[in-house]
Amino acid sequence: KQYRIAVIPGDGIGKEVMPEGLRVLESAAKKHGVSLHFDHFDFSSWDYYEKHGQMMPDDWKDKIGKHDAIYFGAVGWPAKIPDHVSLWGSLIKFRREFDQYVNLRPVRLMPGVPSPLAGRKPGDIDFWVVRENTEGEYSSVGGRMFPDTDREFVTQQTVMTRTGVDRILKFAFELAQSRPKKHLTSATKSNGISITMPYWDERVEAMAKKFPGVKWDKYHIDILTANFVLHPDWFDVVVGSNLFGDILSDLGPACTGTIGIAPSGNINPEGDFPSVFEPVHGSAPDIAGQGIANPIGAIWSGAMMLEHLGEKEAGQSIVEAIERTLAERTLRTKDLGGNADTTACGKAVADMVD
Amino acid sequence: KQYRIAVIPGDGIGKEVMPEGLRVLESAAKKHGVSLHFDHFDFSSWDYYEKHGQMMPDDWKDKIGKHDAIYFGAVGWPAKIPDHVSLWGSLIKFRREFDQYVNLRPVRLMPGVPSPLAGRKPGDIDFWVVRENTEGEYSSVGGRMFPDTDREFVTQQTVMTRTGVDRILKFAFELAQSRPKKHLTSATKSNGISITMPYWDERVEAMAKKFPGVKWDKYHIDILTANFVLHPDWFDVVVGSNLFGDILSDLGPACTGTIGIAPSGNINPEGDFPSVFEPVHGSAPDIAGQGIANPIGAIWSGAMMLEHLGEKEAGQSIVEAIERTLAERTLRTKDLGGNADTTACGKAVADMVD
Ligand SMILES: CC(C)[C@H](C(=O)O)[C@@H](O)C(=O)O
Ligand SMILES: CC(C)[C@H](C(=O)O)[C@@H](O)C(=O)O
Repeated sequence: KQYRIAVIPGDGIGKEVMPEGLRVLESAAKKHGVSLHFDHFDFSSWDYYEKHGQMMPDDWKDKIGKHDAIYFGAVGWPAKIPDHVSLWGSLIKFRREFDQYVNLRPVRLMPGVPSPLAGRKPGDIDFWVVRENTEGEYSSVGGRMFPDTDREFVTQQTVMTRTGVDRILKFAFELAQSRPKKHLTSATKSNGISITMPYWDERVEAMAKKFPGVKWDKYHIDILTANFVLHPDWFDVVVGSNLFGDILSDLGPACTGTIGIAPSGNINPEGDFPSVFEPVHGSAPDIAGQGIANPIGAIWSGAMMLEHLGEKEAGQSIVEAIERTLAERTLRTKDLGGNADTTACGKAVADMVD
Repeated sequence: KQYRIAVIPGDGIGKEVMPEGLRVLESAAKKHGVSLHFDHFDFSSWDYYEKHGQMMPDDWKDKIGKHDAIYFGAVGWPAKIPDHVSLWGSLIKFRREFDQYVNLRPVRLMPGVPSPLAGRKPGDIDFWVVRENTEGEYSSVGGRMFPDTDREFVTQQTVMTRTGVDRILKFAFELAQSRPKKHLTSATKSNGISITMPYWDERVEAMAKKFPGVKWDKYHIDILTANFVLHPDWFDVVVGSNLFGDILSDLGPACTGTIGIAPSGNINPEGDFPSVFEPVHGSAPDIAGQGIANPIGAIWSGAMMLEHLGEKEAGQSIVEAIERTLAERTLRTKDLGGNADTTACGKAVADMVD
């Protein structure tokens, strides 16, 4: 079977890392007999917005909605387009309209990457963050009253639905069950956020009953972030709401050295819609155009995409090539203390794939 | 003048660390000619709740509302009392009803405390977290609909008022202005939390105009937590909403080795009501009763209380005594790798005060 992939580089360093991601994907596809077809799209970018006054064409869903997956670079350039236009007009639109209710990110200390945490070695930190990706704190219900007076106030509702909470918890428990440690940690803040978070806890308890083989615990988000730093070895699968998952899946990669190498999947597990795979880093206007961006986040995201498509071996071969490249310490980008440029690093990984 | 202090040990290790805090306060008071009068209260505890069916007497405000400050241990024992009863019936009630709208916590890497961050030395990490302490995400507006059906959902509103946001920002900018670096960092998430957080940003910009001498920047909370780990030396004063401040003020102390030594003040800057000073750690049921809790969080909170009362020298003498005790590495509790008990550590600090 041939997989059809929609490729959207987006903005800034997204455009620089994507060619390397594609290079590595092609290398792995060739070696593992996987057939990939790429369709390239220029929307979700400042260039497109400048020309058309919107982030995406009206028929964006027809254009990319039937692909097997979407391979995405980065979006957002606050100095040129307000975030609520650029992000809510593309990335967050995909998540909502393609019902990508799982945001999945590995947190793994890789060989050759200096750990910012004292004394931690590869193997010590290896877990997944599972983030609810469609509702929760990222809602559009709320508003402002008494503008420009002393009585002015704003409100915004966090919304959690039974459907939304249960399906992300089910995904997280299933993931935990599939792993050797079978351990799930839930992020809460029921002692302070007194309505939605106790509800989250209640649903965790109910779901846990269906997975008797999984050990689970919960921490309030404040002490949980502290434990990411103090005890990163405690975790196996960590599940959180949209906001808590967002925080934990930037903090986790930081604890393993750099967010420059971290990948993510925005997944619709049922396969009714395509899933989006993108590096955790954004468009990084400050270093865009210099050719120094780390392409490993994009490359690793490509590996996640292959695994999601069912091509486990090909995906795994990319992850191993990343590990070997990093371990050799020669072809690393600036953020990791090396001086290789984006292309040299991408070529090194592509050559390593076997 | 004699200062009248209400002392509330509360629960768990709160009862163990408070005597040491008082020992050190008495030592500093004596050496610096400060007159402190302590009134002890047994409410805000499980024992009190068991006897009276509520956390505090009906006339709690008459009992402690006229004191110059409240010195607090810890509250909460989820296995015995639900958090919404214990916390919302005491700690959070103080914050709201005594209008303690500032939650202030230092983040400082102390000599002799092993840093969990590789290669960081005392002096590298030294900043304040200023947290809004009365509104924001900790609201009581919201509810549940369609219970026990597939349509079930819950909502909870974040509420930010002009008054509430402006006064915490003013406090934070003033604090930044008083420090050598004059640098303020605001925690936001306006790219995801699309109504309340852009409002927060708007008020930061407006307030910044009144403090032209302060350099300021803002980070989304996800990358901000990452930067606490990767670049803790960037920060001077960090201001955040109730939830973001809560997270940052646990993560910050974790980055400096342990939350066992971190102090906090719940402050009503106008002095209309007493402020509460308490260690950041909670009641810690798992180690309560063993006499091994680290008293330094409570002791340091006592120092913050003296400084708040205007007794800067006496407060500073306690902070220096803590630094010397930690630097000597002999009288440290278990969480810091030592084997001193709570009392031995408290006595050591009390002896060091000069
Ligand atoms: C106990 C809890 C409600 C409290 C909070 O979240 O405010 C605590 O974490 C704190 O930081 O004082
Ligand atoms: C860009 C932003 C809206 C986004 C989010 O908060 O979801 C990003 O931080 C992410 O994690 O993908």
